[in-house]
Amino acid sequence: MRLRKKNWSADIFAEYQDFVTKLADAEKGTWKKKLNNDKLILEIGSGKGDYWHQMAALYPDRMMIALERDYTACAIALKKCAQYQESNKHLIYGDLERLSDIFAEGEIMALHLNFSDPWPKNRHEKRRLTHPDKLKDYLKVLDDEGSLVLKTDNAGLFNYSVVSIGQNGFEMLEFDVDFRSKESSDPFTEYERKFHELGQPIYRALWRKKHVG
Amino acid sequence: MRLRKKNWSADIFAEYQDFVTKLADAEKGTWKKKLNNDKLILEIGSGKGDYWHQMAALYPDRMMIALERDYTACAIALKKCAQYQESNKHLIYGDLERLSDIFAEGEIMALHLNFSDPWPKNRHEKRRLTHPDKLKDYLKVLDDEGSLVLKTDNAGLFNYSVVSIGQNGFEMLEFDVDFRSKESSDPFTEYERKFHELGQPIYRALWRKKHVG
Repeated sequence: MRLRKKNWSADIFAEYQDFVTKLADAEKGTWKKKLNNDKLILEIGSGKGDYWHQMAALYPDRMMIALERDYTACAIALKKCAQYQESNKHLIYGDLERLSDIFAEGEIMALHLNFSDPWPKNRHEKRRLTHPDKLKDYLKVLDDEGSLVLKTDNAGLFNYSVVSIGQNGFEMLEFDVDFRSKESSDPFTEYERKFHELGQPIYRALWRKKHVG
Repeated sequence: MRLRKKNWSADIFAEYQDFVTKLADAEKGTWKKKLNNDKLILEIGSGKGDYWHQMAALYPDRMMIALERDYTACAIALKKCAQYQESNKHLIYGDLERLSDIFAEGEIMALHLNFSDPWPKNRHEKRRLTHPDKLKDYLKVLDDEGSLVLKTDNAGLFNYSVVSIGQNGFEMLEFDVDFRSKESSDPFTEYERKFHELGQPIYRALWRKKHVG
């Protein structure tokens, strides 16, 4: 997501400095200690943060980490800390490209991709967050029982991802082509609420790291 | 599918006797020779046979075998031989429960499940054509490169099947939550045409037998 840089962003970062990390390399391998929690859940591309905040409220014993590369989106997400006051969350203002610099091997328990950019053109395949190159990075930072959860309204991205993820080190445990037709405690993202209200199906699947041998 | 037994069914069976087998056990392991074709494609639950006939027309070098346990449906499918005159097809009037008695190990190249009964109730799970017990039978009759293709309009059956098939010896190669939104030479079944015209998405996926080791 690209948003206009707002003047107040820096102020917000300052105000919620306990909840946010900008240069994350120094923390690699120390997140559990730093955040005082062994169960780290990472949302990649957390946007304006609704899912991040709600997940923290829903799972008080876990630590919700959001990774977002857009500065203004980070500020908007941080600002909502005033409304969502749980402390079991942390935001990293950084780029997915550097995932392996930010987290050590096996440091993450679960990884969420919500309504990621579909990059529909073939020549942009590498940018999709479920491209095999990205999946390799996810496998590294996930622990042995680590899971990957994907939610999207985009049929093209879902079609691509289900095959790509299944062929690159993950085994599927849950799958739904109409996730919101059933009761679920899973929070809505900003986008998801909109798509759902338009009557579009929400696709969702969950994989676990495949055990070899 | 249950249809009323029509009086003319026996006559149709007699008229098209070259295209149909009733007691199939004797043929186990001899189908390629009997049908004079090494590429055997099996459709399980072929109903009134539209897909069967059209696939035979589409793939003249392969042998389309239909397995259907309803006598009248078989007769209706056979009757269409007058319209679809290709000879590369064969119908087996028999029950899936006896798949391993009808076919030898590795005898089949590809297996199609089209719009199978969803059996939505949990207590009927065993009846679904993608239950792990059935998948074991499919793995047996499929050759080493054998594929399994599923098409359905039913979200519940698709959700169940994608997880079940992925966890029981198959790896996914193709996947689509809106199969008919793109051009495809794949024939429509009778049901599929109806659902598609109602604007419902058609789900489809293709798996290959997983190679171990």
